[in-house]
Amino acid sequence: MKQNLEEKTIATQKIFTGKVIDLQVDDVLLPNGNVSKREIVTHPGAVAVMALTEEDKLVLVRQFRKALEKTILEIPAGKLEKGEDPMDSARRELEEETGYQAGRLEEVVSFYTSPGFADEKIHLYWATGLQKGTRNPDEDEFVELVELTMEECFKRIENGEICDAKTIFAVYYWKNRVEAGNE
Amino acid sequence: MKQNLEEKTIATQKIFTGKVIDLQVDDVLLPNGNVSKREIVTHPGAVAVMALTEEDKLVLVRQFRKALEKTILEIPAGKLEKGEDPMDSARRELEEETGYQAGRLEEVVSFYTSPGFADEKIHLYWATGLQKGTRNPDEDEFVELVELTMEECFKRIENGEICDAKTIFAVYYWKNRVEAGNE
Repeated sequence: MKQNLEEKTIATQKIFTGKVIDLQVDDVLLPNGNVSKREIVTHPGAVAVMALTEEDKLVLVRQFRKALEKTILEIPAGKLEKGEDPMDSARRELEEETGYQAGRLEEVVSFYTSPGFADEKIHLYWATGLQKGTRNPDEDEFVELVELTMEECFKRIENGEICDAKTIFAVYYWKNRVEAGNE
Repeated sequence: MKQNLEEKTIATQKIFTGKVIDLQVDDVLLPNGNVSKREIVTHPGAVAVMALTEEDKLVLVRQFRKALEKTILEIPAGKLEKGEDPMDSARRELEEETGYQAGRLEEVVSFYTSPGFADEKIHLYWATGLQKGTRNPDEDEFVELVELTMEECFKRIENGEICDAKTIFAVYYWKNRVEAGNE
């Protein structure tokens, strides 16, 4: 039998409203009747695109990440805009960041990145049939296009340049697809 | 040639100091000389354990996540304690949450969960040779042990009960390992 593990909200304190995230602290009633605090970051959600070129390379962007104080390689991604369909957003972000238009875009999976403290959900897409479109990054976004073979991707995981959840997932997912003969 | 994409910090404003996370807003100098703001959540980091039973099932915990307002299935995980070695932490969290002691614990990969706004890094381990130890969850932690075959795990990804980055990665990683004959 499944236990009821739910935590009821008693009070919510808004701490911060930002451009990207908001922060609140909730007082919650635990299943044992005790009270505890939960720190919660809210985020609009995001899309990320695993795009494969004709030469069987994964499309990545080099980008500086202030939270990590380093420049890393990631699959193209971006925040969902209000009311925007995730697939439209994926198509838009891919072209803005890399200049590629996806001939075919397939939804793969969605995941919450940090369920312990944030509601951010990333929708992941698989893009093929790439054609050159127009690069047009956001004005405060500085990214560099990099295309790598699967072997090179695993080397970059090894050396830490590929180091975020969505991109490491993408590389393993790609390997699975190739092994399943479904690529 | 690699561009320098770095963003220099001009000022840091501390917004919040919590039990789990802190929040700050940095003013940064962009590569084009403009100034922008970066919202940054800092987190102590975490460990997560992919533990496989003798019956070839993945060890999961059902847990309510306030940020998502739902109860989900995740691999056992927990915050790093100050100065603690991640492998010791993985061993401790696995036993506290599931009652299993790992006969063998192997480091697999580490990833940042949300590099766009947080520095949280999860260290992932592969555990085998499980033996029954003593369950001892934290006092404000209510979790239920669930063990699932690979096929069941993929069904739970499909129905959304498995829905976070580390656990979805774990299931695909497990599939890769089995296909590589390395399990």
